[in-house]
Amino acid sequence: MQDDGVNALKNIAWIAVDWGTSNLRVWGMASDGRVVTEASSDKGMARLDRAGFEPALLALVDGWLPHDRQTPVIACGMVGARQGWVEVPYRQAPCKPVRFDVMGSPATGDPRLRVIILAGIKQLEPADVMRGEETQIAGILLNEPQFEGVLCLPGTHTKWVRISAGEIVHFTTFMTGELFNLLSRHSVLRHSLDGAGWNALEFANCIRSMHAAPANLSARLFSIRAEALVSALDAATANARLSGLLIGAELAAAKSHWLEANVTIVGNGVQSERYAQALRTLGRSPRLLDAADVTLAGLKSAYLQIAKDFR
Amino acid sequence: MQDDGVNALKNIAWIAVDWGTSNLRVWGMASDGRVVTEASSDKGMARLDRAGFEPALLALVDGWLPHDRQTPVIACGMVGARQGWVEVPYRQAPCKPVRFDVMGSPATGDPRLRVIILAGIKQLEPADVMRGEETQIAGILLNEPQFEGVLCLPGTHTKWVRISAGEIVHFTTFMTGELFNLLSRHSVLRHSLDGAGWNALEFANCIRSMHAAPANLSARLFSIRAEALVSALDAATANARLSGLLIGAELAAAKSHWLEANVTIVGNGVQSERYAQALRTLGRSPRLLDAADVTLAGLKSAYLQIAKDFR
Repeated sequence: MQDDGVNALKNIAWIAVDWGTSNLRVWGMASDGRVVTEASSDKGMARLDRAGFEPALLALVDGWLPHDRQTPVIACGMVGARQGWVEVPYRQAPCKPVRFDVMGSPATGDPRLRVIILAGIKQLEPADVMRGEETQIAGILLNEPQFEGVLCLPGTHTKWVRISAGEIVHFTTFMTGELFNLLSRHSVLRHSLDGAGWNALEFANCIRSMHAAPANLSARLFSIRAEALVSALDAATANARLSGLLIGAELAAAKSHWLEANVTIVGNGVQSERYAQALRTLGRSPRLLDAADVTLAGLKSAYLQIAKDFR
Repeated sequence: MQDDGVNALKNIAWIAVDWGTSNLRVWGMASDGRVVTEASSDKGMARLDRAGFEPALLALVDGWLPHDRQTPVIACGMVGARQGWVEVPYRQAPCKPVRFDVMGSPATGDPRLRVIILAGIKQLEPADVMRGEETQIAGILLNEPQFEGVLCLPGTHTKWVRISAGEIVHFTTFMTGELFNLLSRHSVLRHSLDGAGWNALEFANCIRSMHAAPANLSARLFSIRAEALVSALDAATANARLSGLLIGAELAAAKSHWLEANVTIVGNGVQSERYAQALRTLGRSPRLLDAADVTLAGLKSAYLQIAKDFR
């Protein structure tokens, strides 16, 4: 007699994959959309060469795959980038977030796998790109087909996306998260930060002051160093100031996105909560959605589009 | 009979030292202010622990020191920082750039040395600091005692300084140079830059567009990556855009400094020329002064103030 866990694995009809720069996350999905099991590893795109993708995937899902048929694997994210498993060309906005007019299908050594990688989306004027966020957007539209408004997707490269009539109409990427990482780890400011502690009043003040005078970013950044030397700035204030200056500058530039539309923030953890707090400081009432939930919903939405091909 | 070089060394009355984060530069000076000889090494503050400063200095000047008297050594720069040879407290602006009310005098093992380290300058509101630039300013005022106006001193941390009545009245530091280095070496933009090539029209356009809309910095930065992916942006344009966006954002924030005053840029090489070009793009006609020249003049100015103590 087999145990219930192994029996349950027999219900896996397809596998959903979120494969980003740093992490790989997989869900074993039943045909009715329930999650049977899930797993993850640190085998993100950045750690793999082209030959490394199939073994990294099999390391997590080998035991989920029956031998008598192919299991569809639907993947999104940087796995489709130039440095990924196969380069999947971008689809061009304005467009629906997920369609199979463009996709990637890497050849696999294991005959049990049928891998499909979703396309990212490009915008020509001004030039911009996304890979992975389009799947989260598809997930939101699966749950709320009538959604109209603005999405904020915080990350290393935060995206602001305008959605109308079920399409990605326009989007803008900000390097705020990467600037935060570079400045806090590699710049002269690292001496004044310790990663712990938070001064909520300082954060709100920086959001307001950058909103009023966004040009001052690089001088205000140096104030963190100068006040640490001249007036013993505490680390909690320094942490909040660095975050507040960078997010405040982004919100000033993204004002056309959030001023007159409802904003939904897609993310989880500290970074998304900071964006929400910043928008509340400026008088908005954003809604938060969990990033993993909408990613999985987006992969489901993709599977529903092609499920008939597998029957 | 000794050779002329060794004879000339007998004329060295004092030694001028510019000791920064990355480099050490020394000049052997005659009592009339002429340079007898000079030398330099890569033994900047960042490479030395406290015990390493005297050997690093002697490695360059040992043969210049007579045995029958002490030779004054006047030093400026990060050698006086907390991580330097001795920490020299800051003098407080507004003030003359160099005075001996505050200075550092490290004890030396070699009795032939009498080392004096000049103080940096702090500003309390808004908090700011400089170490080294005050000596360059003293050099400009030695040559032009009536100078009134604004100095721009490009570097890792660029300073804008307002000079009036022989005093540093106010100054502002921008992290532009450090941001340029972090973004071009460590960010996702590094894939699109190659350090060579230059598109002068793109640089001018970025200066103008950031001047008009400085909030857009972090989104415009990502355009370098996006256009490289979407429309094969060339490296010369990418290089010029990164520089133009960062300097343009700085000039927008520093506008109160340069709008109605004459601007003198203190520096050398590519970075200073870019600041000059940027200001010309915005209709100003800045003057350029060589950084090493004014540093040496500032150290002379300091020596003149205390020469009587050594007679």
